[in-house]
Amino acid sequence: MRFSQALIPTLKETPRDAEVISHQLMLRAGLIRKVASGIYTLLPMGVRVIRKFEAIVREEMNRSGAQEVIMPMVVPASLWQQSGRWTKYGPELLRFKDRHDNDFLLGPTHEEVITDLVTQTVKSYKQLPINLYQIQSKFRDEIRPRFGLMRGREFGMKDAYSFHNTWESLDQTYEDMRQAYERIFSRCGLGFRMVQADSGAIGGSVSAEFMVLADTGEDAVITCSHCHFAANVEAATCTANDTAPPNSSNVPAAVAILTPGKKTVAEVAEFLNVDNKFVIKTMIYLADNSPIAALICGHHEVNEIKLKHVLGVSELVFASESLVKKLTESELGYAGPIGLNIPLITDHSVMQCGEIITGANQSNHHMQHVVPGRDFVPTTVADIRNAVSGETCSQCNTGQYEIRRGIEVGHIFKLGETYSDKMNCQFTDQDGKNKPMIMGCYGVGIGRTVAAAIEQSHDDKGIVWPKALAPFEVVLILANTKDATLLDFSNQLYNRLQNEGIDTLFDDRAENPGIKFKDAELIGIPFHIIVGKTWEKEGLLEIKNRRTGEIIKVTEADLISHIKKLLEH
Amino acid sequence: MRFSQALIPTLKETPRDAEVISHQLMLRAGLIRKVASGIYTLLPMGVRVIRKFEAIVREEMNRSGAQEVIMPMVVPASLWQQSGRWTKYGPELLRFKDRHDNDFLLGPTHEEVITDLVTQTVKSYKQLPINLYQIQSKFRDEIRPRFGLMRGREFGMKDAYSFHNTWESLDQTYEDMRQAYERIFSRCGLGFRMVQADSGAIGGSVSAEFMVLADTGEDAVITCSHCHFAANVEAATCTANDTAPPNSSNVPAAVAILTPGKKTVAEVAEFLNVDNKFVIKTMIYLADNSPIAALICGHHEVNEIKLKHVLGVSELVFASESLVKKLTESELGYAGPIGLNIPLITDHSVMQCGEIITGANQSNHHMQHVVPGRDFVPTTVADIRNAVSGETCSQCNTGQYEIRRGIEVGHIFKLGETYSDKMNCQFTDQDGKNKPMIMGCYGVGIGRTVAAAIEQSHDDKGIVWPKALAPFEVVLILANTKDATLLDFSNQLYNRLQNEGIDTLFDDRAENPGIKFKDAELIGIPFHIIVGKTWEKEGLLEIKNRRTGEIIKVTEADLISHIKKLLEH
Repeated sequence: MRFSQALIPTLKETPRDAEVISHQLMLRAGLIRKVASGIYTLLPMGVRVIRKFEAIVREEMNRSGAQEVIMPMVVPASLWQQSGRWTKYGPELLRFKDRHDNDFLLGPTHEEVITDLVTQTVKSYKQLPINLYQIQSKFRDEIRPRFGLMRGREFGMKDAYSFHNTWESLDQTYEDMRQAYERIFSRCGLGFRMVQADSGAIGGSVSAEFMVLADTGEDAVITCSHCHFAANVEAATCTANDTAPPNSSNVPAAVAILTPGKKTVAEVAEFLNVDNKFVIKTMIYLADNSPIAALICGHHEVNEIKLKHVLGVSELVFASESLVKKLTESELGYAGPIGLNIPLITDHSVMQCGEIITGANQSNHHMQHVVPGRDFVPTTVADIRNAVSGETCSQCNTGQYEIRRGIEVGHIFKLGETYSDKMNCQFTDQDGKNKPMIMGCYGVGIGRTVAAAIEQSHDDKGIVWPKALAPFEVVLILANTKDATLLDFSNQLYNRLQNEGIDTLFDDRAENPGIKFKDAELIGIPFHIIVGKTWEKEGLLEIKNRRTGEIIKVTEADLISHIKKLLEH
Repeated sequence: MRFSQALIPTLKETPRDAEVISHQLMLRAGLIRKVASGIYTLLPMGVRVIRKFEAIVREEMNRSGAQEVIMPMVVPASLWQQSGRWTKYGPELLRFKDRHDNDFLLGPTHEEVITDLVTQTVKSYKQLPINLYQIQSKFRDEIRPRFGLMRGREFGMKDAYSFHNTWESLDQTYEDMRQAYERIFSRCGLGFRMVQADSGAIGGSVSAEFMVLADTGEDAVITCSHCHFAANVEAATCTANDTAPPNSSNVPAAVAILTPGKKTVAEVAEFLNVDNKFVIKTMIYLADNSPIAALICGHHEVNEIKLKHVLGVSELVFASESLVKKLTESELGYAGPIGLNIPLITDHSVMQCGEIITGANQSNHHMQHVVPGRDFVPTTVADIRNAVSGETCSQCNTGQYEIRRGIEVGHIFKLGETYSDKMNCQFTDQDGKNKPMIMGCYGVGIGRTVAAAIEQSHDDKGIVWPKALAPFEVVLILANTKDATLLDFSNQLYNRLQNEGIDTLFDDRAENPGIKFKDAELIGIPFHIIVGKTWEKEGLLEIKNRRTGEIIKVTEADLISHIKKLLEH
């Protein structure tokens, strides 16, 4: 492609409304333009990157034995009424009526459509397993779309759905998909980790997320310094410390003291001159409409997913201000376990503290010298907090947890019989009986992966594409387009590169060389071939490596073999 | 792909609600399944065909210098308010609100989105021309979707939009697109014609349609037996016959006669025992709200596009029953030119008749012995009818028009400044002045072309794919899967075919051979390699040509070279 004829509207300035680096660079390098909030047009550079990624996804899905289908974006409500999601799904589901007043939705995901298709077309265990995927546009009406392609409303996704007659068969496809995803993200040259996405405390569903590691990632990922364990921060188990708590036999009786206006952990800890961790947070929730209290150390965070699992409830919300006031008979900020007549779910680490500070259930007062077990009896002691950096790995009991940042780009999930039950998706088994199919589902965010690649790999000059995703492998830069001989020579070089199958952008614009070099850096093409001063003076071409900045000089005769070596490397 | 593992749900019976052959065969051969009225899922066989066609379209668009973009399906109303189409477009435009109560639509076409993009990113004549295309899903809320992919609601389209600084530049790209379309449809092995889609009587817009010829096509196409002229039936000019009309000097005076209850041309012609063509139809319209009458011979049809051009009006609708009664002072069915006090737009051919029958503007009466020009004076004599088979070609004046049936699969269009004017899409010209860009647009229906290919090429056994569009080039049929030696041999053959790059479906199902042969015919794969009785008895493989039914026997050693020859042919 010739730059002079291409639509690559690069920008010098960072657009104001782009918060994250990938969004900024996609706008600046001319990959995307906004059409409406969370809705974008992909420009030619963006399309090239997306198509390269899609081709890798398609190849690896096909290799795994999955078959490609294309489902519609416009989906009749009737299917979602069968699954129950028509009413259950929140306002992110865009619902509308057609001209005949029938209800439709824009598909944010396609479990219902595929389950209906498989119900119609697959009848026998002999036809199972089957794994169907599509690469298609989805829509989620996010309340606050942002971050460009990272969290858009209309977005490209590869979604696959597998159907099985046995759980073992699901396990096998789940493993095949895990391997396919490893190949996909490896081929893209991305640094990533597969992490457990659910603590599994209740059993039930199993899932894992694929995270591209990037300092700017919105998700926290726990990895172990010793073993291969990796998990979403919310899914990483915290091991109960099995050393005995400090001896508390000499601790004085618990006593309420005046802490005027001190409500937060930080305020109380400073006022009493103790470490944060000894100031216990007593958080009051409604768990399936019954009040409960969760107790954790001041430096920890409640993990609501774990807490739900411990309680065995499906809904967990903060109690209202008025309910908290009623239960604690005080202003907000002074809740504590002593005298609080509701279940007390207490984190292991609280029990290890020996002596703690808690709220006093009295305005402007906290309790000192509280000993868990002596002064209050927990209803349940369990793991109800997020893991933190430095604690011992729950898997190997040897390494320590490290927290890294990541961007979720893929998700594999054992769905089980949820949809087949509701939508009556059955097969006839070997024994002649009808049984519900067992399902798995597997997603990759297309635009999101491309955005994550930029978050992971950029510098202050622009994008640094991994070779597999770069819009072009090579940019040929002619510094001076006014010289007819040089232009002629560069045209020949461009043709030769193309004939050798090297994916080349030819910057033939009548622009100042500085602009061309800057645009090449910004767009992030891996190798720049420069026909410039070195060619005029020394008869040598320069090849610049975008990632390292290294420049080598080669003769015209050696150019192609050099470039091919660099691309293969 | 192994048939035993593939989702190819063929059907023996023709589904009841499928009216046209391509819809029936796409369902029966397992290419598509309905999700809702006019909304389909493409199954693996359907996806393979669509992807092959898309690849051809993409290659030829790229070759022509066009650049690929991807625009969203969900489009903000604000852009369509700028162009005026938000209110002008009928109920086929699906409008809805997002969660923030903002108006959106599902794009049925993307002039507004692309014009807005180009307005933002292209400023100077130096950046022109530019031609941007996408291959993407569109939505039109058809009142009665039907014919499967031929007239669906959600459908795939390649749409391209070009922007120019001069009309000559638009002419050039229009011609490039014409050539690209010729290459696309030729490579697909389709019989097609490019036809003029507008009579051009008023000038203004120029467009041409690409029609796949098929007896079942919904459009009539006029072609010339002598020259290369081809046009949509509505766009083909009818030449005024320049021979003098028959001498009418001896025709008696016009007289009203009783024709009780005879209203249609056929009834009157039979009653009076004259040829249909001498019974003139007087059709009363409201042209931009003023009544006019159109006069044509009984065997012709009014061409409303031509009539609008002649009148220079933008709206033309039939007059209401009450208005017709009022103007003619009679029941419906007896309108005639004599005494009718509104403009009389008369087709050339009426003037050639000599003596005619018309309505008498009196219930149950017609006028006999009417001589045009003598008994009534036409306000305008013009070409206002559809061309018919057998008349002299208006282009070469030598050949005769022939009427063939076709299916519109592509459309190229010189838009001019319509959108750039309304959306303020300007560029700075060489003279430093801002001017509106000149636009063209170019569409190809993706699913529609695939459906048209089936309409053009099928037989009573099923689809007969052109090689370029077939889901597989070859199907390898193992008749007897119970014999382990044969199965082993066929597996090796399958691997060899794949290694040779031959796109092969291996029918390894444990099914009766008759079912396999029938499915292979139904799906329409061009060549069938059969490991059957001939292999067991003679040690020879059979290659069956789906189109001709011809079977040749080859040795295992010769198989690959034979197949390659057949595929290249």
